[in-house]
Amino acid sequence: MLKFYFAAQTCALASHLALEEAGADYQAMRVDFSKNEQRGAEYLKINPKGRVPALVTDRGILTETPAILFYIAQTHPKANLAPLDDPFAVGKIQAFNSYLCATVHVAHAHKLRGYRWADDEAAIAEMKRKVPETVAACFTLIETEMFAGPFVMGDKFTIADPYLFTLATWLEGDGVDPKLFPKVLAHRNRMAERPAFKKVLAAHS
Amino acid sequence: MLKFYFAAQTCALASHLALEEAGADYQAMRVDFSKNEQRGAEYLKINPKGRVPALVTDRGILTETPAILFYIAQTHPKANLAPLDDPFAVGKIQAFNSYLCATVHVAHAHKLRGYRWADDEAAIAEMKRKVPETVAACFTLIETEMFAGPFVMGDKFTIADPYLFTLATWLEGDGVDPKLFPKVLAHRNRMAERPAFKKVLAAHS
Repeated sequence: MLKFYFAAQTCALASHLALEEAGADYQAMRVDFSKNEQRGAEYLKINPKGRVPALVTDRGILTETPAILFYIAQTHPKANLAPLDDPFAVGKIQAFNSYLCATVHVAHAHKLRGYRWADDEAAIAEMKRKVPETVAACFTLIETEMFAGPFVMGDKFTIADPYLFTLATWLEGDGVDPKLFPKVLAHRNRMAERPAFKKVLAAHS
Repeated sequence: MLKFYFAAQTCALASHLALEEAGADYQAMRVDFSKNEQRGAEYLKINPKGRVPALVTDRGILTETPAILFYIAQTHPKANLAPLDDPFAVGKIQAFNSYLCATVHVAHAHKLRGYRWADDEAAIAEMKRKVPETVAACFTLIETEMFAGPFVMGDKFTIADPYLFTLATWLEGDGVDPKLFPKVLAHRNRMAERPAFKKVLAAHS
């Protein structure tokens, strides 16, 4: 059975949602960031990066959201979470998820985790100040250039949907009005009604 | 035929190396960052993000290094650039490439592109100051926890190798001594001797 390590209010939500949508056989293991468990000796054996998510499989441990999402899709083909035999369509999903991972999540991280890239308090405060602007710029690109609708990639639910949903739930906290992005907001509202999403969201509250 | 948009001294090198290793039929299109061509109207039609790399296929355009690398592997199976039918092994490659994309490249970007996350000059200078420390921390994890050897994933060359090579060529410029990471440095030296690498590196000089 898969063991899935997550923490509430983190990007691990995306992989958790995908596991549930896939009907995967998994055990969810909560890591308590308020006790700094992610930096503890026990958890660093699971993920030396000290981050979530991490997925323990019978072959070893996987980390990083885009990798875990694609692994879930590849190992649960009946759930149709990605067009596995269409390299271009897979490429579009991976490009979208890479953008979320390396640009959107990174823009957001400058709000609470600026210490990763600066020590000076004034610099960390300046990064925090700019977050609403950088996050809004990312979501403008998603709304106008990337989102096909009604799902991220078009007619079918894929592993891009739980990932966009997850990052879109951070908008208000980042000081960005989600109403500026009506397609993303409607998608967020629709996704929240799916039974698998309801179940997982309850575990993250 | 594929059209591949790149700029010298950028992460586009990784995808360029993979195209050449794959024996792909492609045309390399140079974008001149010194003339800010990546923000020009012509190029924004190719990639609205105003970044490289971008790969124009007969189905449409792909961006983001991890996505392009996997697309090249999937569409050139004879080149054996990824164990396509082994979801766990694919997951390990994608996890490594996601780490390079979202953590290592991002750490590096705070040297010359701090303006993405702050406007204040002092804050941008403070980010730049910390780059040697954050980049060295990333490469310590790669050296001790991730690099299997002799290739990134072990016995076989994969799409993780040109990507690590690319980011490892930035170490000196980031103020980090590559000798601190003997396995990564030996890999960089070995990779530079491959005929495909020599050919592409000449186009990026």
